[in-house]
Amino acid sequence: MIVRPPQHWFLRLFDWHGSVLSKILFRLSLNLLMSVIAVMGYQWYESLGIHLTTAPFSLLGVAIAIFLGFRNNASYARFTEARRLWGSLLITQRSLLRQVKSVLPEQDDEAKSFAALMIAFSWSLKHQLRHSDAQTDLARLVPPRWRDEVMNSPLPTNRLLLCMGIWLGEQQRNGAISDVFIQNIDRNLNALSQVLGGCERIATTPIPFAYSLILHRTVYLFCTLLPFALVADLHYMTPLVSVFISYTFLSLESLAEELEDPFGKAANDLPLNAMCTTIERNLKEMNSDFPLPEPLQPDSRFNLI
Amino acid sequence: MIVRPPQHWFLRLFDWHGSVLSKILFRLSLNLLMSVIAVMGYQWYESLGIHLTTAPFSLLGVAIAIFLGFRNNASYARFTEARRLWGSLLITQRSLLRQVKSVLPEQDDEAKSFAALMIAFSWSLKHQLRHSDAQTDLARLVPPRWRDEVMNSPLPTNRLLLCMGIWLGEQQRNGAISDVFIQNIDRNLNALSQVLGGCERIATTPIPFAYSLILHRTVYLFCTLLPFALVADLHYMTPLVSVFISYTFLSLESLAEELEDPFGKAANDLPLNAMCTTIERNLKEMNSDFPLPEPLQPDSRFNLI
Amino acid sequence: MIVRPPQHWFLRLFDWHGSVLSKILFRLSLNLLMSVIAVMGYQWYESLGIHLTTAPFSLLGVAIAIFLGFRNNASYARFTEARRLWGSLLITQRSLLRQVKSVLPEQDDEAKSFAALMIAFSWSLKHQLRHSDAQTDLARLVPPRWRDEVMNSPLPTNRLLLCMGIWLGEQQRNGAISDVFIQNIDRNLNALSQVLGGCERIATTPIPFAYSLILHRTVYLFCTLLPFALVADLHYMTPLVSVFISYTFLSLESLAEELEDPFGKAANDLPLNAMCTTIERNLKEMNSDFPLPEPLQPDSRFNLI
Amino acid sequence: MIVRPPQHWFLRLFDWHGSVLSKILFRLSLNLLMSVIAVMGYQWYESLGIHLTTAPFSLLGVAIAIFLGFRNNASYARFTEARRLWGSLLITQRSLLRQVKSVLPEQDDEAKSFAALMIAFSWSLKHQLRHSDAQTDLARLVPPRWRDEVMNSPLPTNRLLLCMGIWLGEQQRNGAISDVFIQNIDRNLNALSQVLGGCERIATTPIPFAYSLILHRTVYLFCTLLPFALVADLHYMTPLVSVFISYTFLSLESLAEELEDPFGKAANDLPLNAMCTTIERNLKEMNSDFPLPEPLQPDSRFNLI
Amino acid sequence: MIVRPPQHWFLRLFDWHGSVLSKILFRLSLNLLMSVIAVMGYQWYESLGIHLTTAPFSLLGVAIAIFLGFRNNASYARFTEARRLWGSLLITQRSLLRQVKSVLPEQDDEAKSFAALMIAFSWSLKHQLRHSDAQTDLARLVPPRWRDEVMNSPLPTNRLLLCMGIWLGEQQRNGAISDVFIQNIDRNLNALSQVLGGCERIATTPIPFAYSLILHRTVYLFCTLLPFALVADLHYMTPLVSVFISYTFLSLESLAEELEDPFGKAANDLPLNAMCTTIERNLKEMNSDFPLPEPLQPDSRFNLI
Repeated sequence: MIVRPPQHWFLRLFDWHGSVLSKILFRLSLNLLMSVIAVMGYQWYESLGIHLTTAPFSLLGVAIAIFLGFRNNASYARFTEARRLWGSLLITQRSLLRQVKSVLPEQDDEAKSFAALMIAFSWSLKHQLRHSDAQTDLARLVPPRWRDEVMNSPLPTNRLLLCMGIWLGEQQRNGAISDVFIQNIDRNLNALSQVLGGCERIATTPIPFAYSLILHRTVYLFCTLLPFALVADLHYMTPLVSVFISYTFLSLESLAEELEDPFGKAANDLPLNAMCTTIERNLKEMNSDFPLPEPLQPDSRFNLI
Repeated sequence: MIVRPPQHWFLRLFDWHGSVLSKILFRLSLNLLMSVIAVMGYQWYESLGIHLTTAPFSLLGVAIAIFLGFRNNASYARFTEARRLWGSLLITQRSLLRQVKSVLPEQDDEAKSFAALMIAFSWSLKHQLRHSDAQTDLARLVPPRWRDEVMNSPLPTNRLLLCMGIWLGEQQRNGAISDVFIQNIDRNLNALSQVLGGCERIATTPIPFAYSLILHRTVYLFCTLLPFALVADLHYMTPLVSVFISYTFLSLESLAEELEDPFGKAANDLPLNAMCTTIERNLKEMNSDFPLPEPLQPDSRFNLI
Repeated sequence: MIVRPPQHWFLRLFDWHGSVLSKILFRLSLNLLMSVIAVMGYQWYESLGIHLTTAPFSLLGVAIAIFLGFRNNASYARFTEARRLWGSLLITQRSLLRQVKSVLPEQDDEAKSFAALMIAFSWSLKHQLRHSDAQTDLARLVPPRWRDEVMNSPLPTNRLLLCMGIWLGEQQRNGAISDVFIQNIDRNLNALSQVLGGCERIATTPIPFAYSLILHRTVYLFCTLLPFALVADLHYMTPLVSVFISYTFLSLESLAEELEDPFGKAANDLPLNAMCTTIERNLKEMNSDFPLPEPLQPDSRFNLI
Repeated sequence: MIVRPPQHWFLRLFDWHGSVLSKILFRLSLNLLMSVIAVMGYQWYESLGIHLTTAPFSLLGVAIAIFLGFRNNASYARFTEARRLWGSLLITQRSLLRQVKSVLPEQDDEAKSFAALMIAFSWSLKHQLRHSDAQTDLARLVPPRWRDEVMNSPLPTNRLLLCMGIWLGEQQRNGAISDVFIQNIDRNLNALSQVLGGCERIATTPIPFAYSLILHRTVYLFCTLLPFALVADLHYMTPLVSVFISYTFLSLESLAEELEDPFGKAANDLPLNAMCTTIERNLKEMNSDFPLPEPLQPDSRFNLI
Repeated sequence: MIVRPPQHWFLRLFDWHGSVLSKILFRLSLNLLMSVIAVMGYQWYESLGIHLTTAPFSLLGVAIAIFLGFRNNASYARFTEARRLWGSLLITQRSLLRQVKSVLPEQDDEAKSFAALMIAFSWSLKHQLRHSDAQTDLARLVPPRWRDEVMNSPLPTNRLLLCMGIWLGEQQRNGAISDVFIQNIDRNLNALSQVLGGCERIATTPIPFAYSLILHRTVYLFCTLLPFALVADLHYMTPLVSVFISYTFLSLESLAEELEDPFGKAANDLPLNAMCTTIERNLKEMNSDFPLPEPLQPDSRFNLI
């Protein structure tokens, strides 16, 4: 995620970091080359009867813009849903700890151990979504009693949730938490289960591949043919206008692709590390378990991962 | 569903598998033929006073693109809702097993038998949605006690849910699960009921037939007449541009039709087999019931069913 | 609702049943007549200085397409919400019966009597939404104890829900269902109340009348003037293109009107009779109350009501 | 709200009541005048070098149509949410009365007094939303015990809800309603609280003023300049086409403004009086408290307020 | 937020306050300057072969309008969600106080102290979202018992919620509130937790930066080049039309940016101070804790913050 101070509109025109410009630069250069070819060779291929006009490309461009708008919507919906799920993770874990502390006011150790399970759950989910190795974080966070069980499991995130459920059942059987209040806590464990399943769904089910493919193809072919359609009207101005139009379409197509997988580490993806740290800070603060970890800061390119 | 490694943008232009190209290839060829006829016969039918121009087709094309965008939205909403329901199936079943294991920590047999009912529920739902025969899977999965009742039922998926409810009532009457905690489990059974009913709704209620029909007709007629409208401006370039525009409209119309029934076995449909296996893996892992079934892998055409 | 076997794309172009074509046929003929007048009288009224061009109609056509897209969305949202409510009706009633059977395993009579109240609720709701007479179905379905009360009520659907609540209160007072489990059942009665209220809302509150009116007017006037705008460019092809464009706009406007009231009996409306039969089948199957009623089949025109 | 019998499409073209036509009639006349000026003065100001063409207005018109479509969506969403909240009011109050009657089957007086509080809540909410005086209705409806407290409160609608909560607490303390069942009723009181807060939100937070303003300005300026852009192409037909296009844009802009505040008394607003009467009818019917108030009927202009 | 009396449409055209006009005035002047340069230098640079036409800009303008419509939607969705969360804050706190007063009818002190915690929660949330100093308000509002704990916390808003949970646990342990009823209150504390987390999510996660950047760039470049494309057709009318089109695009882009952060103090942002005062008024009225604070009034520029 890009985090930066507000800028004057003029400076923003030349902002580089965080845009998708770097990704499409090669493709834009190709478009520029095509434009130059179109301008150079215009009279020659026109004499061969090869002739393109703006009108059909206008129709095609608007149609592609409509379909691209739809794809943007779908990608952005995935991004916001992913963010919402991680927001719900923080919300639910704070609620869970509030509930536990409300019925076990004297037992700080139990509260801390339960908080540790939750913090481990967040980091484990992050590793699962980014296909990175969770072992170090699990070893650091999971309380000794559950450590082996979790670290040996092929599905550690879900196993951590199971541990919380088992812990809860024990508290109920030894009378620390009443049968009735268990219900409220259990409902929030269900909410954690929904966060886990929702993130897995987004990570494993892309937007139907044919959508991406059809739009990718039409946008690229459209940009390639565009200079030849513009040259009859615009002559020497063809490269400028053609690159401008191509920039609009290519950059939005490229961004849609980036947002489609919000759990990656690209500039516009979600800052899962920062979010895990926020969760850790919040739960430890509620337990007055100081010092809190420092919140992550964006790097020199305003990037937060 | 298509699952494939990320590709360079250039290679994706020529990707074949998983696109809907094969479905519309014949129709595109027809369009090519029409274009050639338009170019050949142009002067002859022009002399008869038959004359088409781009302008009205531009208006029509944009209008169709808007309506097609709407149809895409509706189809994609069905696809994502179906995926969401199957995600909810996994989430709810994991929650149910966590709840059962939390209150019955010593009774592994009961937990395994309850898990078996849930796994059978998933496979039975898959067979119901794909109109395939569930008997083999039911015989393999349903615990002996319920087997006859379920396999003889005309509505086995719903019957499995009823069995879970009956099992739950028994646990309550013999005191294993308290009256209060039953509520939490029962709520998750309601959620399973919603998954079942939601999937049935999507499978039995298509998008109103007139929508598909009107768009199907207008898109096909539009593509047929298009070459005759373009030829006056584009001459020899008519086939290229006409096939390109037709590809954009036909492929999106065709994909919308494919996504409308997300429970099929086409390339862009949901991989129900893989999802059932995931559910089986998760529930067995929670019971430490090894070995787990292997996750399904995409076939050589990157297809996962 | 139209239910039909998948067709080859070519056959679908000439499909007749289930489209809204019959409704707009007269209007399309009028448009054809206008086109012929436009072609015939072109030179005469042109000489009077009456002159229309495509450009402003292009602007107007795209604007109308955008607004019509919005109206389609609104109508389709009503259709899907109505379907969703009826889906929720089936889901909730199955859940309710599962709950009752889970706590009253031995009392088949009570379960059957409760199921009968629910089945009567569905049919009564259907009659209320279609303004048809519910007396025959109520007499057939409502158990004797409640029959008079329900059949004499001016609001029988809601009264049936009240009866279920009274029945539930009795079960609790005579100790058959515990105070705690009542909660779960009561929540599902609330869900039935939401289905009832939701359907009433859709049936009594149309899309604001001015929306329909403005779009109806602009679409009709647009189609009437269109031939005069096209004739300067298209001459003898005016009737073809004009009828084609009119077909696209008129048929979608007409379909939007049809979907706006999803509880009617038109070809694209919801098959409430079939749904009530499905509910009856499901609840009877759960009570093993054979023979089940046969599922309704589409008639010879593929129509299911 | 406009309620009328279905009409033939031809008659609907000339329907007057309930459209927003009366509101924009002056503005349309102005547009007609501009068109006549444009036609008359065309040669004179053309000779001065003042020249407008259709092309830029086409771009502008489509852009405005897109933004207007967005504004329509936002206004319509407010309208449907408001309707949904009032639907939820009826649903929740029926559920509440069903719950009370289910646990207090013999105490008709308590049920009637509770129903009276709910009916008063609906009317009080109506007066609050329409800024009218609630005193007469409160004096008529609120049971004597609570009357002074409610009528003296600066926030009577919320106070009525508080009274229901207090009543509920008393029933629990005197043992009439069990601790457990209170929960179900309390949840529905929360739902009433949501209806109240939701309606207040819609009533106090308009769509950001700048949106309305920008669109209002661009639509009006667009319609004013349009005749001068059309006249070069259309000559004597300019007034017809210009008024037609302006009608489309102005009427939708005007309707969006009307729907933005769904609690007003304009033709397309919600019929709050009729809804309150429906609620009163339903709750009294459940208590067999005859005679029921008559449902409100639309007036001679088909208007229901 | 702008609050103003309804105006005649004519006056609204010249309304100044509350529009985003002031923000884009410099940019519009620049556009005017470009237009004048385009008109002046037309013949000179045309002779150099530099030539732009309307057609490609028409395509580009419509594409940008579509993407801008998407951005508007996304920004407006953030605005409405933020408003909805603050509405939910009022709703939930009223419900919480109703619940507490219903079970603790005699203990006005406890109810007032609980209400004070909730009022402090609202003001603390406001300060957190606007990055202002909460200490004065916390000192004024938090009851002495919790004051130090809250004011020393790095995360005071969440800490206030924890205090409510602790208070609730105490009430349960000393028998004032039953185990069962605690559940209902606890659920509403969860709802407060969701409001807090939801607001934090909106405040910390902007719309992906690349979206804003791409649209900002294309809109600005589009407006800069536009006069050169229009001048060939419009000559002396170029400045008028060019500024008009630029106004439409720039003002909507600027408004989208303003709405993106709904918690700011700009004219179209949410009036958090007024909302906190409304909450304070409502909770104090329920406790009959007069005098109530006066509702905030818009200032002389109709602005409410």
